[in-house]
Amino acid sequence: MFESAEIGHKLEKSVYRREVPKLRRELLDLQYKLLKDGRFQTIILVNGVDGAGKGETVNLLNEWMDPRHIHTHAFGEMTDVERDRPEMWRFWQALAPKGRIGILFGSWYTDPILKRVMGHEKRAEFARRLERIRHFERMLASEGTLLLKYWFHLSRKTMKKRLEQLSAHKKTAWRVGPEEWEHYKHYDQFVDICEDALRETSTGEAPWEVIEGSDPYYRSLTAGKLLYDSLAARLKSGPPVISPPPPPPAPPLDGRTLLASFDYTRKLDSREYARRLVRAQGRLNQLTRSKKMRERSIVMVFEGMDAAGKGSTIRRITQAMDARFYRVIPIAAPSDEERAQPYLWRFWRHIPGHGRAVIFDRSWYGRVLVERVEGFATEFDWTRAYHEINDFEEQLTEAGAIVVKFWLAITPREQLKRFKARQEIAYKRFKITAEDWRNREKWPQYERAVNDMIDRTSSDVAPWNVVASDDKLFARMETIERLAERIEEAL
Amino acid sequence: MFESAEIGHKLEKSVYRREVPKLRRELLDLQYKLLKDGRFQTIILVNGVDGAGKGETVNLLNEWMDPRHIHTHAFGEMTDVERDRPEMWRFWQALAPKGRIGILFGSWYTDPILKRVMGHEKRAEFARRLERIRHFERMLASEGTLLLKYWFHLSRKTMKKRLEQLSAHKKTAWRVGPEEWEHYKHYDQFVDICEDALRETSTGEAPWEVIEGSDPYYRSLTAGKLLYDSLAARLKSGPPVISPPPPPPAPPLDGRTLLASFDYTRKLDSREYARRLVRAQGRLNQLTRSKKMRERSIVMVFEGMDAAGKGSTIRRITQAMDARFYRVIPIAAPSDEERAQPYLWRFWRHIPGHGRAVIFDRSWYGRVLVERVEGFATEFDWTRAYHEINDFEEQLTEAGAIVVKFWLAITPREQLKRFKARQEIAYKRFKITAEDWRNREKWPQYERAVNDMIDRTSSDVAPWNVVASDDKLFARMETIERLAERIEEAL
Repeated sequence: MFESAEIGHKLEKSVYRREVPKLRRELLDLQYKLLKDGRFQTIILVNGVDGAGKGETVNLLNEWMDPRHIHTHAFGEMTDVERDRPEMWRFWQALAPKGRIGILFGSWYTDPILKRVMGHEKRAEFARRLERIRHFERMLASEGTLLLKYWFHLSRKTMKKRLEQLSAHKKTAWRVGPEEWEHYKHYDQFVDICEDALRETSTGEAPWEVIEGSDPYYRSLTAGKLLYDSLAARLKSGPPVISPPPPPPAPPLDGRTLLASFDYTRKLDSREYARRLVRAQGRLNQLTRSKKMRERSIVMVFEGMDAAGKGSTIRRITQAMDARFYRVIPIAAPSDEERAQPYLWRFWRHIPGHGRAVIFDRSWYGRVLVERVEGFATEFDWTRAYHEINDFEEQLTEAGAIVVKFWLAITPREQLKRFKARQEIAYKRFKITAEDWRNREKWPQYERAVNDMIDRTSSDVAPWNVVASDDKLFARMETIERLAERIEEAL
Repeated sequence: MFESAEIGHKLEKSVYRREVPKLRRELLDLQYKLLKDGRFQTIILVNGVDGAGKGETVNLLNEWMDPRHIHTHAFGEMTDVERDRPEMWRFWQALAPKGRIGILFGSWYTDPILKRVMGHEKRAEFARRLERIRHFERMLASEGTLLLKYWFHLSRKTMKKRLEQLSAHKKTAWRVGPEEWEHYKHYDQFVDICEDALRETSTGEAPWEVIEGSDPYYRSLTAGKLLYDSLAARLKSGPPVISPPPPPPAPPLDGRTLLASFDYTRKLDSREYARRLVRAQGRLNQLTRSKKMRERSIVMVFEGMDAAGKGSTIRRITQAMDARFYRVIPIAAPSDEERAQPYLWRFWRHIPGHGRAVIFDRSWYGRVLVERVEGFATEFDWTRAYHEINDFEEQLTEAGAIVVKFWLAITPREQLKRFKARQEIAYKRFKITAEDWRNREKWPQYERAVNDMIDRTSSDVAPWNVVASDDKLFARMETIERLAERIEEAL
């Protein structure tokens, strides 16, 4: 991939001088168009060989355009807040919102490549991480993000020359330390591995552009023009067509579904409940205080039809925990900051660090439930969501999170009873709205969506727990006991 | 203040059992009313003596109400992100939004009290920190926050007994470590200093409530009822009347003002400009790379009438810096998450850590400029803002920030010229709207607001730099040179 980036590309200073003023005007113009359009963000990754002009290019882009609407992030050492969350968390936090340009200096490629070069990770692990990156970038592209990936390259000889030049000048010597020379020592390996990485991740929706970095005029004008072309094309012609995920799940031919064949009749009497509740809550409490929890976190997801008892079940769980340990996140309409980001962003921001739990009352599964049924998401959006969600939960798990998901299953008859009861009680009346009655009419569509969701997102690392919830006591007990079991297993 | 919290308050279990169910219903009801009302947040501080039931009370409040709408935060060791920002930053990050209840376990009182008890800080410093807390809490109350401060107390004898009890049981022994016994050893000093702190900070808008902690029934029911009473009263009768700040500034009797007597005619020719620009940018660049910057940060503020040249001046400054070093924050309409918080929250969130700079293109001064003139803020809000802003900038400075503020001063004539020019250039046309023309008509009101602002917020630690800006070249040069000077002085 680097062949034509080692031939010594060059540009006359006079050409550069002539071209740049026009390019700047055009870039600035496009930047403001993007800001006004506001429907997507542009994310530029700046990666490559040391000394190939990455920093200079980032500065130049900030100089050519209006830096007030550019979000530049450089990724160095992880902070302690970042360290006990999934690796991608810090990149999610740094995503520029729609309408803006984000420049990422160093990116999700840096760590996999360096770990591989230094021999800290095997080939298979490297391949797995590239695979994850492909999925992530595909998700970004599907969400409308314009993702531009620039790789700045230098031949071995030029790299050496460049490092020597930088070291020789007082003003630039600080930029070359032992780390840079160490990288140079591994040049061949480094370039080999980068070549693999770039080839494996040059996809239709987010191809790499390799730019030879030895001549500043050539390098700068190339980067600027590439950005101009991509942004102009995108603003003109709209988002690219991304090959759709597999067709939406078809209902089973025999009409038998998981939920339809589920046993809703299980019950627990109140004496038994009282007895077991104390024990189960005690067990849960002890588990959350276990020393092993310091390296783990818990992410709980509660989903269910309206009035399935999510709130009251969650309260039986929080009762068992110290209030400093958990946080409950009720998911309602997104804020405008959340709307300006890819779908999963609003969940990523709440991911707990080690030693903490987060309980989602409704969750990212909204996409394949309410958004699917009500048509808030396109078919393309909700069908691709299954994979995106699985990938998200896998990342959580790998970072030490114990992901526990509950579907509180009630029958339409029981829901009706509860709706009516709620209307009787003053402080519960606000919980029942016209919308709840409307949703109820779509019960079959919702049930189909739930069946598909469970089929497609019940994974080894994060299986669904379907809990019979017509009887509240049974549901609560079952939930707490299964939760404690899952945590115990995981620790 | 603790006298009546050492008399051994007690409640019969039967009374507790009878009262609690009703209290829970009422609290839950109020919580949902608060959520629906959405106009203010309730913040509960839980502080006091070790072993007095603070943790139990926090858990109980979460149990009695709906934990989905409670934001509980416990403050332990600072993270590395928190450490190089002002002390109050972490508390600002933890403020519950309007409609919610925030419970802070440990608070802005913890550190000043402990430092004083351990003798790490002198009396004068302690007094200064309490003074700052009073201002902060007054600001919260003025913004509508219902701030409840609960202090859980134990007599010396009861504390010892309680620590021994906790240590004796396997399940609770983990809660008593060397730190708790250390605190016990300093009991007398601790209580003395706490008494001072509580007395000094029991204000009309945010009084302390002292609760004796030895009997769990008494303690819990008291805390619950206090919360109920305050919340019910507040929801019923609206925000308290807070004594207004000093009356708004009157115009000087002789009609002479700072801006009116300012010399707008200063100019720079372009040859001189080009020559000095390179030098000034180079100097600025070196300063930002200085080793001393690792312990400092820079907060720049740019204000000026429309078309005063804020954007283009900012670009001359960012050109001189590495893009990884700075972040530009353009201030426009607040997002809905920002609207759900006290006014200064949206600025606090962008405060840089050490070794970084943030450039605000418009800022918190909007409150005393556009919001004052256009009537978006009440007189009460903008008059108290002067002091709140001075306090904010003082905190920044103490945490190592170099605060540099620029007012780019242009004449109405020059503004008109620029408005007209903008309408000529395609990519600048979007920058000029009907609103700009409307604002222009209010020039005298704006000028008065600017005069007042400069008079009241030009402090030793963060003086205003008024820069003659009818000539763009002069304004840019003057700004960069003054900026470099300020940084140099500060390092």
